[in-house]
This record gives sequence, C-alpha cells and structure tokens, in this order.
Amino acid sequence: MTYELYYWPGLPGRGEFVRLALEEAGATYTEMVREAGIATMMGVWQDSDIATPPFAPPILKHGKKVIAQTALILLYLGDRHGLAPKAEAARLWTHQIQLTIADCVLEAHDAHHPLGVDFYYEDQKPESARRAAVFRHTRMPKFLGWFEKILARNPKGDRFLVGGRLSYADLSLFHMVEGLSYAFPKATKRALVKVPRVAALGERVARRPRVASYIASDRRTAFNEDGIFRHYPELDG
Amino acid sequence: MTYELYYWPGLPGRGEFVRLALEEAGATYTEMVREAGIATMMGVWQDSDIATPPFAPPILKHGKKVIAQTALILLYLGDRHGLAPKAEAARLWTHQIQLTIADCVLEAHDAHHPLGVDFYYEDQKPESARRAAVFRHTRMPKFLGWFEKILARNPKGDRFLVGGRLSYADLSLFHMVEGLSYAFPKATKRALVKVPRVAALGERVARRPRVASYIASDRRTAFNEDGIFRHYPELDG
Repeated sequence: MTYELYYWPGLPGRGEFVRLALEEAGATYTEMVREAGIATMMGVWQDSDIATPPFAPPILKHGKKVIAQTALILLYLGDRHGLAPKAEAARLWTHQIQLTIADCVLEAHDAHHPLGVDFYYEDQKPESARRAAVFRHTRMPKFLGWFEKILARNPKGDRFLVGGRLSYADLSLFHMVEGLSYAFPKATKRALVKVPRVAALGERVARRPRVASYIASDRRTAFNEDGIFRHYPELDG
Repeated sequence: MTYELYYWPGLPGRGEFVRLALEEAGATYTEMVREAGIATMMGVWQDSDIATPPFAPPILKHGKKVIAQTALILLYLGDRHGLAPKAEAARLWTHQIQLTIADCVLEAHDAHHPLGVDFYYEDQKPESARRAAVFRHTRMPKFLGWFEKILARNPKGDRFLVGGRLSYADLSLFHMVEGLSYAFPKATKRALVKVPRVAALGERVARRPRVASYIASDRRTAFNEDGIFRHYPELDG
C-alpha cells in the first residue's frame, strides 16, 4: 500500500525526517502536495470525517490511518520497514532518541523565532540574536554531546545510535546535523570537532546508496529561509 | 517492582504528568529526590554505566530500565497499567495526543522564557509579553480547540480523549488545563468557555478518587514560579 505524505511545499521542514525514512526503506510514497497542490493537504487536515484529525503536518496517510507528529510517524514506519529494533527496550530507546532530536530541532527553529511563529524573523531580530547565541554556545553543544555519548556507549559499537543496525534515528541525526551545518556553519563546524562519532555517522548515512540517490534527486528540497534550519549569517558566529 | 521517579524538587513540572499516571494506576513509586536528595538524581543522570543515559528529567527507573522523555514514560506506563488502549491504532493515537499536549506545554513555558532557559524571566520580560500575548490569543485557543474537536469526534463519546476509558492522555490534559488556569487565569477562563468538553473532562478527572486523593495529599506540589506554568499577572489578560 502506497504511503501518502502531506507536508508544506518548498521547504524540507519536519517532513524531511519522514522522507528520509521512506527513501531508505525503499517505500513507495506520494508527495501529495507536490502531486495535487496544497489544497489536498488542507483537505486532509480539515476533513471533518477523520476521527483522528492531525494537529499539524507532517501527516502520513496509510490506508485508513492518518498519523501526525514526526516522531510517531517514524515509530510507525520503523516497525514496518526494519528501521528500528524489534526488541521492546531498544525500540523505545530509539524513540526516546528521536524525541530528543525533535527537542533539538525545535530549539534550532526557535533560534530564529523566539517569539513564536506568528511574527516574521524580521520582527524579532534582536531577540533571535540573543537566543541564537545561547543555542550556539550552550544548547547545541549539549545536545550534540549527548548524541556523542550514546554513540560511545552503544554496546554494539559507535557506528549506529542503537545496536548494530541503522535506525530512523540515525537518518534523523544525519539530517539534523545537515540542518545545523546549513543554519550555523561556523558554530556547527566548531562543535562537530568535539563530537567525532556524530560527524562520522552523518558522513556514513550520506553515503548510503538510497540516501545518496535521494539527495541527488529532484525529490529533495534544499534548505532555505522558509524552513526550520535557516541561514541568517548574523545568527552564526 | 517499585518505580523510581527522578525529577527536580519543589515544582510540579513535567514530572507531574508521570506522577498523575502513577497515582491513577495505584502504582508503588518512590520520589527519589524527595527521599534521598537531588544528588541521587544527578547520580542517575550522570551515571557513566547507563547504556541509555537520559538527556533530561523526568527519569523513570524500573528495574534495570532507565527511561526519559515524558511522553515515552507515559507510553511505557500506559501499557503496563491499563492507561492506554491495547489496540495498536488507538494506542498510537493516544501517544499522538500526548505529543501534542507536550507541544502545548512547551509553548506555555516559552511564554515566560522565549529567549530560552539560560536567561531568567526578569531578563526577558518585554519578550515574554509579546510571546505570551500570541500564546493567549492564538496558540492556546488553537490547541484547546483541537482537544475539543477530538473529544467531539470520539466515536465512543466525549467523556474521554480515546475510546470509552480513561487514558494517560486524559490525565495529562487535566493537568495542562490546571496549569494554564494557574498561569493565565483570565485568558484560560475565557478560552474554556469555548471548549466545554475539555473543561468537563478536566472536572471529571479531578473527581476521580485516586486523583482527588493525590491532589489533597502532601505528595502534590503546588504550581509556583519555578515551574513550567508560572503566574505572572502581566502575562495574562
């Protein structure tokens, strides 16, 4: 059964974490907004017949199931495509890591939107400068240090976040590091020196045949200043 | 096996969502920080022998398992204490609701800490005023409206968020509404008029014998200005 993915057009955003899992799984999926326009997403989003209406995109439709919340979509896909361990403790640990990635991604977003999404960046530039400085100096190193630590402690070695096989969390960490490198190139370059396992994981994921093929394709949307990870030079340093 | 809960002392915080589930389940748990001081939490948090180190509290220890991330802890407890449906789709829907509660709770927090946790409220008061206004007028009504909608659409009726039985998501929604009412009494009172199902759910949960008994006990920490939900009159209106 084909998956239907509904997400904002023109930016990688949180949809990208879902796309990477679908691509690595070799799953068949349709980007509904790209195929049928934004109205198709609003239709699903606002459909009054859905008993489990999504609060926000990304939204994955699979048969009759309508699932939102990025980490939950990945939990769902992980089980179906061997992108998470089957053993319960390891499966939940993978999800825990994903939830922590989500926390870091949100803080990266809030670096340019500390006053919330109802104001443009241009209307919160001084506030962004203060929050971004804390993110660069304190929060980003703290998050990256945690990922480095769990790689170092993985009893199966430091090639993957959980056990000895790729999980959706590895794909997401790769994308997060890519996003940080786009948004804060100077600060991220500095930070990655201290987390060599995280840096190496990112490079390995990028070389996986399906990931590499996806990145080279026109299915991949480049980072830009409409997304979560935005490059405003004044926020880097 | 007794659960061990590790959380910051002196504030309800995110630990409260876990406590409510443990209390409603009638589970035996130890508040480790209250019993043994803050050092015991830092010990678990920084224990270099733990293969799955938590990023942040709350932390639940259950035998050898060490679990962090509030929504994940609740997923774990829900399965073990009948606080979530067993059927997979409903079980994941409950988790999806919980993740959306977590999003709203974070935005309620950010209303008084838009520049992040590394600055005191006193150092971000004008910024808080702007973000809190958007939270009161736009975000809080949007979140509450979504919970109202899913209650209205529940095929088993509007007494519970999922199906015809209490889940941890109901407990969490109750606590969230309590927190919003504490932090933004005027705005929340106004907002609750438009979401009568949410308001009624909160009142029903508060009357459940175990919840009522917990609230009346000295195990319950009152809301205060160290927590997520803080009452700063200048941020309400």
